[in-house]
Amino acid sequence: MTETTSSSVRLRPATQADVDTILGLIRGLAEYENLLDRVVATPEKLADTLFGAHPAAEVLLAELDGQVQGFALFFHNYSTFLAQRGLYLEDLFVRPEARGRGVGKALLKALAELAVQRGCGRFEWSVLDWNQSAIDFYQAMGATVMPDWRICRVTGEALTRLGGVA
Amino acid sequence: MTETTSSSVRLRPATQADVDTILGLIRGLAEYENLLDRVVATPEKLADTLFGAHPAAEVLLAELDGQVQGFALFFHNYSTFLAQRGLYLEDLFVRPEARGRGVGKALLKALAELAVQRGCGRFEWSVLDWNQSAIDFYQAMGATVMPDWRICRVTGEALTRLGGVA
Repeated sequence: MTETTSSSVRLRPATQADVDTILGLIRGLAEYENLLDRVVATPEKLADTLFGAHPAAEVLLAELDGQVQGFALFFHNYSTFLAQRGLYLEDLFVRPEARGRGVGKALLKALAELAVQRGCGRFEWSVLDWNQSAIDFYQAMGATVMPDWRICRVTGEALTRLGGVA
Repeated sequence: MTETTSSSVRLRPATQADVDTILGLIRGLAEYENLLDRVVATPEKLADTLFGAHPAAEVLLAELDGQVQGFALFFHNYSTFLAQRGLYLEDLFVRPEARGRGVGKALLKALAELAVQRGCGRFEWSVLDWNQSAIDFYQAMGATVMPDWRICRVTGEALTRLGGVA
């Protein structure tokens, strides 16, 4: 990824020096989703998993007037029907005070461009069904919101039990 | 991954020699979902993306009596709240004639065990909301079906348009 500028929004790949900033944005997103109690990420864990020997995801930061105001964290998924990698956006967040200035749109467009550059067949993410303003925004960007898929999750004790390692 | 046996189900990681078998299973799944026209995967694309220099996903095959009857294709995702990798199951399919013999359960349990071994915080996948028998099965395995997330997708011309590279 290279640095890009869209109007006054400047985008740049995050580095290990940004882990505190990234954690602040993750906590901002969690607060917006009323899920702050679920955040157990620490600067150390982020440094290890995102900037260690085997990075598990990539982060793009968005700055306005030299201040980081938003981020996108993404990784590659895979489509069996296409036999092709995709780009999956795990989190997108723009600080409330910086909204309406094109930060989210700049991040989405940059990731779509990256997906095309990397030969991905799809660019996907998830949205909460009550977040109508986000849904409207995503649809205006060309996204299809798929009505019939539900995400299943096994975590914690249920995961160790299913794996037979409890 | 190592080979494992659960009752009469034998699981083994797929190799490049299995691409025709994998494509047959992908097409079987697509037929079940009434989406066969969406499958553009070929043996060559599968060989390149799954068994080339940079594998984009992993495949576990399930055999009964020496015949491959099911598969699971998976990759790693990432949770920002946990700052930890997860395991994402993209596709699980068991041939109709082999159902009811524990193949799906063996695949799910093996992946849960792998997720724990690899230090993943979550094991996730998606299910169609009309597929009640699958939902019942997954819930019996300890999964939570999350009601409020919807998957957004940009693909084809919408993707090149959003990326500004059309």
